[in-house]
Amino acid sequence: MMVQHKTPGDIERTSMGIILEELAGLGLTPPPEHQAVVCRVVHATADFDYARNLVFTPDAVQKGIDALLAGAPVITDTNMAKAGVSRPCLQKLGGEALCFMADAEVAAVAREKGTTRAVAAVDKAAAQHPGAVLAFGNAPTGLLRLADWIEQGYRPALVIGAPVGFVNVVESKEHALEVCRRAGVPAILAMGRKGGSGVAAAICNALLYTACGTLDPAARGWN
Amino acid sequence: MMVQHKTPGDIERTSMGIILEELAGLGLTPPPEHQAVVCRVVHATADFDYARNLVFTPDAVQKGIDALLAGAPVITDTNMAKAGVSRPCLQKLGGEALCFMADAEVAAVAREKGTTRAVAAVDKAAAQHPGAVLAFGNAPTGLLRLADWIEQGYRPALVIGAPVGFVNVVESKEHALEVCRRAGVPAILAMGRKGGSGVAAAICNALLYTACGTLDPAARGWN
Repeated sequence: MMVQHKTPGDIERTSMGIILEELAGLGLTPPPEHQAVVCRVVHATADFDYARNLVFTPDAVQKGIDALLAGAPVITDTNMAKAGVSRPCLQKLGGEALCFMADAEVAAVAREKGTTRAVAAVDKAAAQHPGAVLAFGNAPTGLLRLADWIEQGYRPALVIGAPVGFVNVVESKEHALEVCRRAGVPAILAMGRKGGSGVAAAICNALLYTACGTLDPAARGWN
Repeated sequence: MMVQHKTPGDIERTSMGIILEELAGLGLTPPPEHQAVVCRVVHATADFDYARNLVFTPDAVQKGIDALLAGAPVITDTNMAKAGVSRPCLQKLGGEALCFMADAEVAAVAREKGTTRAVAAVDKAAAQHPGAVLAFGNAPTGLLRLADWIEQGYRPALVIGAPVGFVNVVESKEHALEVCRRAGVPAILAMGRKGGSGVAAAICNALLYTACGTLDPAARGWN
């Protein structure tokens, strides 16, 4: 098959142009401060529903970027989301991506306390990483536990919440949004049923690429 | 927030029941042989469009399961998709998940030949892994290169094609489907713009869980 040879940068610029044009056609042009996140998520999913589903607390994007610029780690709820977060960008900023789900220590605590790994992993994040960016794209359990911690005074730099699914998912995101708003914790959430590890990673990467000034894929390097 | 304590197995069974019910309501009940894959992808995305977008060549699901039962490796186009494929299931079957995108060797070949890592990674897969399950969820370049190899006689056990995006993506999947059909290579493809690493991994996992007989999450273990 004849393929036009374009660089990844060309392809991404063309894609973002198409996304912005179609968003405008749908009457869904995001405000400038949300544009990078909305376009990156649509780019990762080809699903324009996210232009409706994504909600941002005031200045959440800028606060997330500020934290990443200061070297905050990104803590994910799955190794899949962790693998999708731009490692070269994080390294450039002095940060790192962490996931505790497969930790032997977390497994032992979960067994001991009769809880789930998802809950024990959030407990570890809250105990050891104040000021982290937390990015959740899997089950609602972790997000609900995080909301409990925030009610008890834990203050992450940013909550990215994009669990996906059919049981407790919609409610977990509504609850987390309410808790974050009340506590003044910055949050970016994909409301409704949709989400996933790829969505959580895409939101992180939109912030990381902006923070790093590496909007051209060629400048980013590979995970 | 009050949360009902359910096991991951309970939640997944409830979710799959909801998905099947809503698919029926949409007139999109999949044939029995495609049900595990369609439901797993909808479960991973909460996007019912996949019930329309997923196409299967004849017996693709069974041929994929047979290959996995025989210990075929799964080769993905991103480390994110690799991280999403069930490692415990693969280990149980004597297989493994591989991704060559971040290989130093692949980077060197790409530099030398003036090509992309995506292309060099497919070349390595085709040269070293006949009979593999290839699962692509990122850029169309890799899928197009794979189609070239199939036209030249390479015979993977199964092609899973779910690149996502706005430039060359739709065309790459149509071309790959045509090439696989002509060559008699089993294929499962998410047609249209939608897809992603999570979709590619979900298709793999539907086959792996069936092959392993671990439909209950508790029996699967963690990646």
